[in-house]
Amino acid sequence: MKKITFIAAVIISTTAFGQSSSSSYNEDSAFIHHVSNAMFGSKAAYNNLYYLTKKIGGRLAGSPQMVMAENWGYKALQEAGADSVRMQQCMVPHWIRGGKDKAMVSYKNDKGATQTIPVNVVALGNSMGSGPKGIKAEVVRVNDWKELEQKKDALKGKIVFFNVPFDDTLVSTFQAYAKNVMYRGGAASMSAKHGAIGVMVRSMTNAMDNVPHTGSLRYTDSLPKVPAVAMGVRDVEKLDTLIDEGKALTAEMFTYGKMLPDTIGHNIIGILTGTEHPEEIITVGGHLDAWDITEGATDDGAGIVQTIEILRAFKAIGYRPKHTIRFVLYANEENGTRGGIKYAEEAKANNEKHIFGLESDAGGFTPRFISLPITDKNKAKLDIWKELLTPYYLNGFINGGSGSDVGELTRILKVPAGELMPDTQRYFDVHHSTNDVLENVNIRELKLGAVNMAALLYLVDKYGF
Amino acid sequence: MKKITFIAAVIISTTAFGQSSSSSYNEDSAFIHHVSNAMFGSKAAYNNLYYLTKKIGGRLAGSPQMVMAENWGYKALQEAGADSVRMQQCMVPHWIRGGKDKAMVSYKNDKGATQTIPVNVVALGNSMGSGPKGIKAEVVRVNDWKELEQKKDALKGKIVFFNVPFDDTLVSTFQAYAKNVMYRGGAASMSAKHGAIGVMVRSMTNAMDNVPHTGSLRYTDSLPKVPAVAMGVRDVEKLDTLIDEGKALTAEMFTYGKMLPDTIGHNIIGILTGTEHPEEIITVGGHLDAWDITEGATDDGAGIVQTIEILRAFKAIGYRPKHTIRFVLYANEENGTRGGIKYAEEAKANNEKHIFGLESDAGGFTPRFISLPITDKNKAKLDIWKELLTPYYLNGFINGGSGSDVGELTRILKVPAGELMPDTQRYFDVHHSTNDVLENVNIRELKLGAVNMAALLYLVDKYGF
Repeated sequence: MKKITFIAAVIISTTAFGQSSSSSYNEDSAFIHHVSNAMFGSKAAYNNLYYLTKKIGGRLAGSPQMVMAENWGYKALQEAGADSVRMQQCMVPHWIRGGKDKAMVSYKNDKGATQTIPVNVVALGNSMGSGPKGIKAEVVRVNDWKELEQKKDALKGKIVFFNVPFDDTLVSTFQAYAKNVMYRGGAASMSAKHGAIGVMVRSMTNAMDNVPHTGSLRYTDSLPKVPAVAMGVRDVEKLDTLIDEGKALTAEMFTYGKMLPDTIGHNIIGILTGTEHPEEIITVGGHLDAWDITEGATDDGAGIVQTIEILRAFKAIGYRPKHTIRFVLYANEENGTRGGIKYAEEAKANNEKHIFGLESDAGGFTPRFISLPITDKNKAKLDIWKELLTPYYLNGFINGGSGSDVGELTRILKVPAGELMPDTQRYFDVHHSTNDVLENVNIRELKLGAVNMAALLYLVDKYGF
Repeated sequence: MKKITFIAAVIISTTAFGQSSSSSYNEDSAFIHHVSNAMFGSKAAYNNLYYLTKKIGGRLAGSPQMVMAENWGYKALQEAGADSVRMQQCMVPHWIRGGKDKAMVSYKNDKGATQTIPVNVVALGNSMGSGPKGIKAEVVRVNDWKELEQKKDALKGKIVFFNVPFDDTLVSTFQAYAKNVMYRGGAASMSAKHGAIGVMVRSMTNAMDNVPHTGSLRYTDSLPKVPAVAMGVRDVEKLDTLIDEGKALTAEMFTYGKMLPDTIGHNIIGILTGTEHPEEIITVGGHLDAWDITEGATDDGAGIVQTIEILRAFKAIGYRPKHTIRFVLYANEENGTRGGIKYAEEAKANNEKHIFGLESDAGGFTPRFISLPITDKNKAKLDIWKELLTPYYLNGFINGGSGSDVGELTRILKVPAGELMPDTQRYFDVHHSTNDVLENVNIRELKLGAVNMAALLYLVDKYGF
């Protein structure tokens, strides 16, 4: 591509959407443009993401890296220009991986000799390890819960291999995730119920590489807590083929996961005090924790950096909100949502007045939608806001809620809340895996998301929600 | 991010846009859904892009790799189900790089000793090389044409260093490119006019890495054809700092570019014959050529693979268009547009009736817009089509034309034509550089673009344009 014939078209497009021409519309449009320029003209967002991913890296609740991240976040919010920054203490779960996860699979090859192949695995978050002795057992493959039920009498003493591929035909990869994530969460206990001694789950991804993706499982307390791993997709397909060929597989797994007693974590809260209604609060945030095997660049370094960047841009252009805005780096989303719960519970206990919440926890990819509650009352307003955000590539608002952390404000205090929903195509290539690194974030896409978020905060502050 | 609370919102969104409920609307919607499933459920697109990038790679017009690419493209269109495939011969320019481009810069350090540092460069396409003796001269920095004019009396025998950064505040990176690309195209002759013996141009990119980006220059025939390179941005910034510090720089450049006599190339044309109006033609295509230093995955492997994928999906779901659709892999966009010109000139000579053209040459990134001529006549139709494409993430149509190749149909025959315009944030990270590799294309994003293109072809075939 060398020609530039369609450039003019892009420029036209930003004025071709039948915009209102009232002076407040023009003022809002100019404001958003200033925010955009402040973000795209600065290296701060990149520098922040660089530090968080490369200097701190994986930072699960309870880890020393999380303490580093909290201190870094405190300083970053100060430098971005918060009136004050507060550490809000909460108890967080403290799971540790405890060692290097490993698994191998053996079978008799066509000549009758035993063949052993390593397979790429990571222990699922919250899972109990096998310890150094490992576990070893025959593999039973199942493709869904129904097949698990059918094979339940054959599971005693076995390792269950869940091979449930993502439905690639779903345009939103989150829909594919939504269909499958119950296997990651429930496979261990559902299999242990029938006497299985461990599970291996196909990674939650559209990618066809061999990188395993971790994430939380949930044990049923009354059942044995068996070891559980996620496996890279190419190895999954390899085992699948071997089983299709009629080979009996034996798997050996070594994991070391351990749930320690709850420990102390902190939400880091930067505050920009409102000029007219300081007691009325708007919250924006992402989560500071990230799985130990990742750099947590997309999940949720992006949301953290966007949160800080919005504050920095507001200050850079001299904007003071009428309501108080809190910029919250939540302590623990991945395996507990304890940060979000604490924040909302304290808000309730203190009788705080919250008018809106906004979250970014779906990656720093180019923005698509903002999910928020659409009502008869706000619909006309949102139509204008959508027009204002069209030049920043928002497809539109969709009726829904926010992510887990800010969502606690909705659950506990009925605060309306939303979430940035970027393009999802690349999300599960990196999610909860060693692929979740700085290099897989495009900082311009991340900033474009932050522009849309900042604009929405400004509009809610000005016009209410 | 672990929770799935907003999944429901996405599902709602695809039915929340006030869609028409006529039976033809539902039929069209179902058709597009089938196309989408056929693409997202297949590995063909990935396999094609893999072969084109990893087995063939850079394939500039006139190169042996281009011959390989033509043969591959011919077979790929056959396998995708074309009724017939044709090679349309055209003469193409034949520029060769001729060797490994190299440059270094010397200056006196603070202790008075001469320091020489290598800088990352690539010769610009179409440029004449310095040959093995190289050129060596004092460096004159300019920041725009105005400064070049101001310094014109000081350029004799010098190497001019153009440092014009992209305007990062422009949301569409193509706008930044449009502002700056004249320096890549014209710096050599504009400087030679004043006696300069070579130029070094800041690479056309938003990225802050050190990878140089090539691309065409245009010499003015009446002026000396001086060597010209593009430089990686980190080295540009380094030289900039040295000059700001008052250091006099001397550059040495070795390039080997040569323009050989025109040679033979081919447009590869797959044909799906129309059932009702076989003599009326719709064209869709991308360009097969790619700069020698790249794999040409984004520019324009994406457009090639999308073109083939649309044909494959149409056949897979048993669709036969009413009009003839030609799937064209153009021979030479990068340094000549000779393929596009040939195709349109022959169409004119043969008095062919063309009703629409569609191009993909802006990358395999997630779709944003389709640029096409919007008129009072087609506006209402496009509003419905936009609704049909909303579930596949099209932001909308914008008034404009197509890219260079299909654009020749418009120029020569006044055929209305459009182009897929994906998200631009990552485009200039890879454009014309060694970063333009398979790994920097997300195949789901590429397919989402192809779904939108296929849908548009189907709608034009059914309803006219």
